[in-house]
Amino acid sequence: MDSIMIYVPAILAVLGLLFMAAKRSWVLKQDAGDGKMKEISDYIYEGALAFLKAEYRLLAIFVIIASVALAVIATIVPTTDMLIVVAFIFGAVFSALAGNMGMKIATKSNVRTTQAARTSLPQALKVSFGGGTVMGLGVAGLAVLGLTGFFIFFFHYFMDGQWVAKTFDGELRSPAELMTVVLETLAGFSLGAESIALFARVGGGIYTKAADVGADLVGKVEAGIPEDDPRNPATIADNVGDNVGDVAGMGADLFGSYVATVLAAMVLGNYVLRDIMVNDPAFTDAFGGIGPILLPMAIAGFGIIFSIIGTLLVRIKDNNAKEAQVQGALNLGNWVSIGLVAISCYFLVQYMLPETMRMEFYGEEAKDISSMRVFYATIVGLIVGGVISSVTEYYTGLGKKPILAIVQKSSTGAGTNIIAGLATGMVSTFPTILLFASAIWASYAFAGFYGVALAASAMMATTAMQLAIDAFGPISDNAGGIAEMSELPKEVRTRTDILDSVGNTTAATGKGFAIASAALTSLALFAAYVTFTGIDGINIFKAPVLAMLFIGGMIPVVFSALAMNSVGKAAMDMVYEVRRQFREIPGIMEGTGKPEYGKCVAISTKAALREMMLPGILTIGFPIAIVLFGMLVYPDNNQLVAEMLGGYMAGVTVSGVLWAVFQNNAGGAWDNAKKSFEAGVMINGEMTYKGSDAHKAAVTGDTVGDPFKDTSGPSMNILIKLTCLIGLVIAPILGGHGKETLSEADAAALKQQSKEIKTETAKASAATDTRTAEYK
Amino acid sequence: MDSIMIYVPAILAVLGLLFMAAKRSWVLKQDAGDGKMKEISDYIYEGALAFLKAEYRLLAIFVIIASVALAVIATIVPTTDMLIVVAFIFGAVFSALAGNMGMKIATKSNVRTTQAARTSLPQALKVSFGGGTVMGLGVAGLAVLGLTGFFIFFFHYFMDGQWVAKTFDGELRSPAELMTVVLETLAGFSLGAESIALFARVGGGIYTKAADVGADLVGKVEAGIPEDDPRNPATIADNVGDNVGDVAGMGADLFGSYVATVLAAMVLGNYVLRDIMVNDPAFTDAFGGIGPILLPMAIAGFGIIFSIIGTLLVRIKDNNAKEAQVQGALNLGNWVSIGLVAISCYFLVQYMLPETMRMEFYGEEAKDISSMRVFYATIVGLIVGGVISSVTEYYTGLGKKPILAIVQKSSTGAGTNIIAGLATGMVSTFPTILLFASAIWASYAFAGFYGVALAASAMMATTAMQLAIDAFGPISDNAGGIAEMSELPKEVRTRTDILDSVGNTTAATGKGFAIASAALTSLALFAAYVTFTGIDGINIFKAPVLAMLFIGGMIPVVFSALAMNSVGKAAMDMVYEVRRQFREIPGIMEGTGKPEYGKCVAISTKAALREMMLPGILTIGFPIAIVLFGMLVYPDNNQLVAEMLGGYMAGVTVSGVLWAVFQNNAGGAWDNAKKSFEAGVMINGEMTYKGSDAHKAAVTGDTVGDPFKDTSGPSMNILIKLTCLIGLVIAPILGGHGKETLSEADAAALKQQSKEIKTETAKASAATDTRTAEYK
Repeated sequence: MDSIMIYVPAILAVLGLLFMAAKRSWVLKQDAGDGKMKEISDYIYEGALAFLKAEYRLLAIFVIIASVALAVIATIVPTTDMLIVVAFIFGAVFSALAGNMGMKIATKSNVRTTQAARTSLPQALKVSFGGGTVMGLGVAGLAVLGLTGFFIFFFHYFMDGQWVAKTFDGELRSPAELMTVVLETLAGFSLGAESIALFARVGGGIYTKAADVGADLVGKVEAGIPEDDPRNPATIADNVGDNVGDVAGMGADLFGSYVATVLAAMVLGNYVLRDIMVNDPAFTDAFGGIGPILLPMAIAGFGIIFSIIGTLLVRIKDNNAKEAQVQGALNLGNWVSIGLVAISCYFLVQYMLPETMRMEFYGEEAKDISSMRVFYATIVGLIVGGVISSVTEYYTGLGKKPILAIVQKSSTGAGTNIIAGLATGMVSTFPTILLFASAIWASYAFAGFYGVALAASAMMATTAMQLAIDAFGPISDNAGGIAEMSELPKEVRTRTDILDSVGNTTAATGKGFAIASAALTSLALFAAYVTFTGIDGINIFKAPVLAMLFIGGMIPVVFSALAMNSVGKAAMDMVYEVRRQFREIPGIMEGTGKPEYGKCVAISTKAALREMMLPGILTIGFPIAIVLFGMLVYPDNNQLVAEMLGGYMAGVTVSGVLWAVFQNNAGGAWDNAKKSFEAGVMINGEMTYKGSDAHKAAVTGDTVGDPFKDTSGPSMNILIKLTCLIGLVIAPILGGHGKETLSEADAAALKQQSKEIKTETAKASAATDTRTAEYK
Repeated sequence: MDSIMIYVPAILAVLGLLFMAAKRSWVLKQDAGDGKMKEISDYIYEGALAFLKAEYRLLAIFVIIASVALAVIATIVPTTDMLIVVAFIFGAVFSALAGNMGMKIATKSNVRTTQAARTSLPQALKVSFGGGTVMGLGVAGLAVLGLTGFFIFFFHYFMDGQWVAKTFDGELRSPAELMTVVLETLAGFSLGAESIALFARVGGGIYTKAADVGADLVGKVEAGIPEDDPRNPATIADNVGDNVGDVAGMGADLFGSYVATVLAAMVLGNYVLRDIMVNDPAFTDAFGGIGPILLPMAIAGFGIIFSIIGTLLVRIKDNNAKEAQVQGALNLGNWVSIGLVAISCYFLVQYMLPETMRMEFYGEEAKDISSMRVFYATIVGLIVGGVISSVTEYYTGLGKKPILAIVQKSSTGAGTNIIAGLATGMVSTFPTILLFASAIWASYAFAGFYGVALAASAMMATTAMQLAIDAFGPISDNAGGIAEMSELPKEVRTRTDILDSVGNTTAATGKGFAIASAALTSLALFAAYVTFTGIDGINIFKAPVLAMLFIGGMIPVVFSALAMNSVGKAAMDMVYEVRRQFREIPGIMEGTGKPEYGKCVAISTKAALREMMLPGILTIGFPIAIVLFGMLVYPDNNQLVAEMLGGYMAGVTVSGVLWAVFQNNAGGAWDNAKKSFEAGVMINGEMTYKGSDAHKAAVTGDTVGDPFKDTSGPSMNILIKLTCLIGLVIAPILGGHGKETLSEADAAALKQQSKEIKTETAKASAATDTRTAEYK
C-alpha cells in the first residue's frame, strides 16, 4: 500500500480547478455591456478563437510528427517506453487546453471590466483580476494535475506503486533504475507542454507585434487616427494580439516551466534516494520510500492553495484609488502567497525528507545534508522570485534613474536614445546575473542540484498568483481599448488606464519572473540531464565540448534575430492590408464603411505561424543535429557525445538568459521612456511633452524595443527550456543512465532487500496512518 | 650547446625591423607638401603626441601599481619568479613603443599621401601602404624580438639553456617543470603587452568616437559646416582619433594577440614534450630537445619575412585605377604571404617536430600524433584567417544583400533601420561562430590543444601584413581630411577617396581578423591555464563553476555598456567645448578667427583616459575577486577555485566573441548602409540620395553603430585575452601546475637521465650541424 501523499498534490490541483470554475462562472455572470461594446468584444473573442483554431491545426501536425519521432526513439532505445508518446500528447493537449481557457476568459473579462469601470474602479479591478485568477489557476491546476496524474499512473505501471526492485525488460532493476524509467517517460509530458509553449510564445510574440506595429504604422503615422480607433482595420488584431501574446504566450511559458521544474526536481530526488540507499540499503520513509521525489509535487500542490489565498487579498475599496493602491493590493496578495509557500516548505521538508541525507558533490567529498538545508534552498528560490521583480522594476520602471537618463538622451535624437536604451538593457544583466549566479551557488551549497531544483520549485509554487497578476494587465489593456472604441465617457478610460498602467509594470516584472523561472528550470533540467546520461560532468576542456559551448552561445542570438526579422516581415504584410482597406473600402475613414477586421486577424495569424517555423526548427533541430554529428564522429564514445550536448545546453542557457534579460529590460526601458513624455518630462530645464522632437526620438526607441520585449526576449525562455528538455529526452540514447548489470549475488541481495522493503514500507505506512490520525 | 634555432626567430625579427627602418626613412623622405597642408598635418601629429604623452603618464602609474602587485605575487608564490616583473615592464614598454612608432609614422604618412595624390594614385597608395607597412613590421618585429629575447634569457637563466633536470628552489625538478617556470615568467611579458592594449584599444576607442561624434553633432548638425572643415575646433581631434583608435589601438591589440598566441603555444608545446618524455624519457631532438616549444616562435619569425614579401606585391600602375584594383593589389599581397606561411609551416613542422608524438586527450585515449597532423592544424588557422574576412565582408560590404536590406528598411524610419542592423549583426554570429567552433574542433582533432594554439600561431604569422593593410585605411582617411582642410583640387580628394573607400572595407575585415585572433588566442591561453593549474578539466556540472560561467558571460555585456556610455559622456564634453568656441572666438565661422584645436584634443584625451578606468577595473578586478572569493569559501580546495576561474574565463570568451562579432558587424553594416546613399539607392522603385528621410534614418543607425564598431566591439578582444592572461598569471597561486614531489629513486633516475640527455643533445646538435651543412 502506498502513501496517501502521492495523491495529495493531485487533489489540491483539483481543488484549485474547482475554485477556478467558480471564479469563472462569477466573471461570466458579470454584465457584458451593450451594443458597440459587445460587438467589439465579440470581434476580439472571435479573432482570438481564429488564431487558436489555426494554431491548433498546425499543432496537430507538429504533435503527430513529433509523436512518430518519439515512437521511433522509444523503439530503438530499450529504456525509453512507448508510453512517452502518450505523455507527450497529453502534455501538449493540457498546455493547449490551459491556453484555450486563459484566452477565452481573458477575452470575456475585458468587456466586463470596461462595463464595471463605468461605475466603479474596485469592481473593475475585481473583474479583471478575477479573469487573471481564472487563467492562473487553470494553468497551475492543469499542470499539477497532469504531471501528478501521469506520475501516479507510471509509478503503478512500471513499479506497481512500490519503491522496490523488480524484473523489467528481462533484467532485475533497482528501484532507482525503475524510477528513472518512470521519470523519463514523464519527461514526455513536459516536452509536450514546452512544445506548445514554443508555438504560443514565439508565434504569439510575432502575432502581437505584427498587429501592433502594423496598426500603428498605417493608422497612427500615415492616417493620423488615434490608437484603438475602430476605423483602423488592424485594431481588432492588435487587441487579439494582447491576448495571444501576453495571456496565452505567458501562460504556456509558465505552464512549461512549472511542469519542467517539478519534473527535474523529481529526477534529482530520485538520485538523492539512490545515494541514500548506497549507504542505507534498507532505507524507507512514510511515503513508500519516495519522499524526496514526492516533495516537489507537494510544494507545487500546496502552492496552488496559497495562491488562491493570495488572490482573495487583492482588492481595493476606494473608487478614487490611484496606481499605488492597486499595485499595493497586488503586492499584498503576492507577498502573502510567497510567505505561505515559505512556511509550507518548512513543514513539508521536515515532514517528507529524512533528517539527513548523504549527497554526492562532484569534485568535493560526499556530505550529510540535513533536511533544514533543503528548506534553506527553497527560501533561496523564493528570494530570487521576489528580488528579480525589484531589479526588473528598477531598470524599467517609470521615474527610475535609468529611465530618466534615457529620457534625457532623447533630446539629442533617436541615435542617443537608442544607445542609452541598449546600454540600460546591457547593464541590467549585471545585478540579474549576479542574483542568478548567487542563487545557483547558494542553493547548490545547501543541498546540491536537488537544492537548485527545489529552489526553482518553490519559486514556481506561486505560479497561479504570478499569472493572475500577469494576465490582469492585458485584460485591463483590452478593457481600455474597448472603452475607446465604444466611445464611452472619459472617466471610464481613466479608470481602465489606472489598471492598465499597473499592468504595464506587472508585465515587466512578470517577464523577470518568467526568465528567472526559465533559468532555474533549465539548470535543474541540465542537472537532471547529466545524472540521466550517467556522465561524470561536462568538461569544457575537451575541445568538442568547448566548440559546442560556443555554438550553444550563438543560438539565442540568431534565434532573436530571426524572431525580430519575422516581426518586421509580418508587420509589412499587415501594413499592405491596412493600406488596401483604407484605399478600397468606401467611407471607411468617415466611419460609414466597415473595416474587414477578420482579414487583418487572418494575416497576423498566418504570418505568425509561418514565421515561427524557422526559429522552431532551429530550436528543435540543433540538439538533434549535434547528437547525430557526434555519434557519427565518435561512434564508440557516447559519453563524449553526451558531454557535447551538455556543453551546447550550457551555452544556450547562459547566453539565452543574458539575451533575455538584455532584450526584455532594454525594451521595457524604451517603452517607459516614451511613456514618460505623456505626463511631461524636464529636459535641460524645459518641460517637454508628447509631440516634441525628443518624444519622437523616444517613439523610435520604443519601435526597436517592441520586438525586443514582446517577441525575441520572452522567446528565450522557451528556447533554453526546450533545449534542455530535448536533451533530457535524448539522454537515454546516449547514456547508460546508471543502468548497471548486476551479478547473481547482488541480484539475490536486491531481491531479498526489496522483500524487506515491502514489509518495512507496509509497516511505515501503517505507522504514518496512525500518526496522521493522531495529527487530526 | 643549444641549437641555433632558438636564435633564428629573433634574427628574423631584427631583419624585419631593419626593413621597417628602411621603409620608414623612405616614407619620411617623401614630399610633405606645403603651407596649410603641413600646418594641419602638424596639428594632427602634435595632437597624437599629446594623447600619447597623457596616456604614457597614466600607463606609468598603472605599470608601477601592477608591478608591485606582481612582485607581491612573486613573493608569496614560490614558483613565480621576481623576474616576471621585469618581463611585465618590458612587455608594456615594447607594446607602447610599437604604438608610438605606428602613430608617428601614420601621422607623417598622411600628409605625404595627400601630396602624392596631387600627382598620382599609384604613388599615393605606395606612400600610404608604406606607412602601414612600417606600422605592421614595427609591431610584429618588436613582438617577436621581445618575446624570443626574453625566452632566450629565461631559458638560460632558469635552465642554463638546456632541457635537463636541475635542482631549483631546493628541489630537483624535471625539465618540463623548469620550463613551466620559464614560461610563467614569460607570461609577464604578454601581460604587460596586453595591459597596454587595454589602454590603447579601449581608451583609443573612446577617444576616436568622442571626437567624431562631438565634431559631427555640433559641426555638421548644428553649425551646418561639412566634415573635416578647418573651422570646426574638433576636426583635428577627430583626425587624431583615427590614428589613436584605428592605428595605435589595432596595433596594440594585435601586438598582444601575437605575443599571447605564441606564448600559449609554447606552454602547450612544453606539455607535449612532457607527454613525449613519459613514454620516451631519453627523448631529444636537434633543437636541444625543445623543438615543440621553439616551433611557434619559428613560425612567427618566418611570418615576418613572408609579410615583407607580401607588402612588396602591393602596388598598382594605373593612375585611373578604381577601388577594385586597389583592393586586388592588397588581396594579392595578403594571399601570397598567407600562402608562403602555409608552405613554411609544412617545412618547419617536418623539420622541428618528432615524426610522431604521443599526446593525451582528455576523455579519450592517448594518441600518436604525426607531425603532419600538426601541419594540418596550422592550415586550419590560416583558413580561419582567410574565411573570416569573407564572412565579415558579406555582412558589412557595400552592395551585399544584408546592407541592401538595411537600406530598404531605412525607408520606414530609423526604428526599422535599427532593428535591421541589430538583426544583421546578430545573424552574422551564425557563420562566424560555426567557423570558430569548427576550427577549434578540427585543430584539436588534428593535434590537441597544441594544434589549437599552433592554428592561432599560423594565423597570426602574417600579423605584419594584416596590420599594414589595416593601418593604410586611417592613413588614407587622414590624407583625405588634409586634402579637404587644405582646400586642394577636387581630383586629389577623389584619389584619396578611392584609397579611403578600400580602407573602410579593410577596416571591417581587419576587425574580423582581430576577433578571430583574439578568440583563438584566448582558447590557447585557456588551454595553457588548465595545464598550468594541473586541474583535470573544467567541469561545469559543479555549481560554483557553472555560476562563474554565468558571471563570465555577463561581463562582456556590461563592459560593452560601460564603453558605450563612456563615448556618450566624452562626446558631450566635446559638444560643450565646440559650442563654447563657436560662441566665444570671434570670426571663427568666417575663417578669420582660429579655433583652439588643442583644447579639443585635450578634452578627448582626458575623457578617454578617465572613462576607460571603470571597464579596466572590471576586466582586471573580476578574476582577482573570484579567486579571493573562491579561496575564502573553499580554503582547502584550490582545484575547485581554479575550475571556477576557468569557468569564468570560458564565459568571458564565449560571450565576448559573440558580442564582438555582433557589435562589429552591426556597426559596419549600419555604416555602409548609410554610405550606400552617397551613390544613391533604389528604394521602392525610386532613386534615393543623401538628404532624404531614408538617409536620415540611416544616419541614426550609423550613430548607434559608431560606438559598437569602434569602441565596445573591438574592446571585447582585449577583454577576453586579458582575462585569460590574468588567469594564466594567477594560475601558479592555485595549481600544483604539475609540480610533483619525487621519490629518491625517481630523483636519481631523473639525474641519470638528464646526464644522458646532455650527451644525446650534444650528439644530436652535432648531427644537425652536419645536416644543415649538407642542406647548404
